[in-house]
Amino acid sequence: MADLGIDALVREFNQRRPRGLARAISWAESGRGAELIRRLYNRTGRAITIGLTGPPGVGKSTLSSAIVRKARSLGKTVGVISVDPSSPFSHGALLGDRIRLTEHFVDPDVFIRSMASRGHLGGLAGASADAALLMDAFGLDVILIETVGVGQSEIEIAELAQTTLVALQPGSGDSIQVLKAGIMEIADIFVVNKADHPMANQMRREIRGMMEMLQFTGWVPELVMTQALSGEGIDDLWRAIESHVAYLHETGEIETKRREAFTHQVRQLALGRIQKRLQHELQHARTDVDPYAAAGILLAHFNMGDDEEGGDDGDQAARPRAVVKGLT
Amino acid sequence: MADLGIDALVREFNQRRPRGLARAISWAESGRGAELIRRLYNRTGRAITIGLTGPPGVGKSTLSSAIVRKARSLGKTVGVISVDPSSPFSHGALLGDRIRLTEHFVDPDVFIRSMASRGHLGGLAGASADAALLMDAFGLDVILIETVGVGQSEIEIAELAQTTLVALQPGSGDSIQVLKAGIMEIADIFVVNKADHPMANQMRREIRGMMEMLQFTGWVPELVMTQALSGEGIDDLWRAIESHVAYLHETGEIETKRREAFTHQVRQLALGRIQKRLQHELQHARTDVDPYAAAGILLAHFNMGDDEEGGDDGDQAARPRAVVKGLT
Repeated sequence: MADLGIDALVREFNQRRPRGLARAISWAESGRGAELIRRLYNRTGRAITIGLTGPPGVGKSTLSSAIVRKARSLGKTVGVISVDPSSPFSHGALLGDRIRLTEHFVDPDVFIRSMASRGHLGGLAGASADAALLMDAFGLDVILIETVGVGQSEIEIAELAQTTLVALQPGSGDSIQVLKAGIMEIADIFVVNKADHPMANQMRREIRGMMEMLQFTGWVPELVMTQALSGEGIDDLWRAIESHVAYLHETGEIETKRREAFTHQVRQLALGRIQKRLQHELQHARTDVDPYAAAGILLAHFNMGDDEEGGDDGDQAARPRAVVKGLT
Repeated sequence: MADLGIDALVREFNQRRPRGLARAISWAESGRGAELIRRLYNRTGRAITIGLTGPPGVGKSTLSSAIVRKARSLGKTVGVISVDPSSPFSHGALLGDRIRLTEHFVDPDVFIRSMASRGHLGGLAGASADAALLMDAFGLDVILIETVGVGQSEIEIAELAQTTLVALQPGSGDSIQVLKAGIMEIADIFVVNKADHPMANQMRREIRGMMEMLQFTGWVPELVMTQALSGEGIDDLWRAIESHVAYLHETGEIETKRREAFTHQVRQLALGRIQKRLQHELQHARTDVDPYAAAGILLAHFNMGDDEEGGDDGDQAARPRAVVKGLT
């Protein structure tokens, strides 16, 4: 990337050439997003943002590709952000998957960006929130953010996106007990991909059964069967997306979604800064005391009093939830 | 869990009955670890801590079980901490895997604890560090911490453990490019499990080739072939573990390892507290500015000046690393 100044960068961005957008995202990725976003922020808020998550192998990239094709057939410009949660063990598979988006590489109205998220905080790169804002400011109609559901990524994608698609694969063992683990809370639309699989109907029944047991106030997740490779069911999926978008606007929930995405980014930015400072302070942490005492002393640097530190109940919510499954 | 006071809890713990340990861990899990750890911390530092990570399906629990069996045959008491990174999509599989540890459930000298780590920070539960300290203080000889390598968990396990085993599976696509992604830095011992697989030797050659290209200063990772199910290779694995432990003590690197585990826990504790506070502050975050400006204002509450906030270079390291793989 040429070392343009920010004025030249914004000028290029304003010419609405893909290279301008690509450079703006790279600029943000390199940690210089603040001034850029400040300048372009008032142009955001127009795009539809769709999140797509699911386990490895479910065919997310094929689904992405089919969704992009559908959106393009309606004349919409599309941005795709592929977030790779970067498990060292799944790298190869994820990259292989991504190749399926290549059919759109030559379309100037489809902008594809892949990002690896790797850092102590895990989850989506802070840069992916910047990328979504920049694509929005650039004027893309639809922004599709896809990630494999490992770690926290599927929760974070639901925070960033307005409409969250959860793709599931029949016969994968991802049956009903999977849905207990928080997925019901994030899915606006379930996509059972590979609908020609012999166990597809069983999976559909399980999801329906699960939904019947729950009381929904507001949006009830839709369930769509697709065969992304052949394109079957993609029209239904698009209708479900439009239906959810319409619901968000009719009820005013779109503002809640925007606020969530904003809060998500503010949290990630603040945590990133805090973490850097924390890493620095840790080099001087006391080692002649127990870890709790050392943490308490260290927190004083963050304007958090030592007195708050005791093992009181207030501490509870700050700890990751841990459940007991083994011998007790 | 009965609502014992901490004095009764410590008394029961001191009687060295598994129930006392179980209750102490539950106490710490519920967010009341500070006082408990403060009281027991000076008894820690005696156990050998082994981390075991690898992709799903590699046979980690079978390996764990075989390692436990070996340690027991040598008269050692063992604690196992199974950390489930709680992808909603892998839940079922991970739990299924765990069942293989049941052969040790009736052995009073094997203490098994499963924990789910789920929270915005992802990665290992802070409670697993407490559990390791408590098992150590309790007097267990060997503590085995196992987790599936997704998200950040494999990095965190390497920080917590003194000896890190990375299990790989032949023919799984986890070939040489996988090893580039940071695994070389954390593995003290590579375990190629399912050594009877036709591609096991190819994987061994790839790992060896990779190692030959690298310059090691200090410990050179060992490579062990196992068939955990039949027990083949487990003696070799145990010898490799003992050899690494001896290396750590001879070189004094054991102190570095202990410091890393300490720092890891202090970081997690501090981040947990900060995150809770951040969540609170986020409810009052400005929404009439862009996310960077809002983050800057919010950080003042953490004794971090707004003036540090601009998109200067210093910000760079605080952002998750993001690399470009797609169109630019």
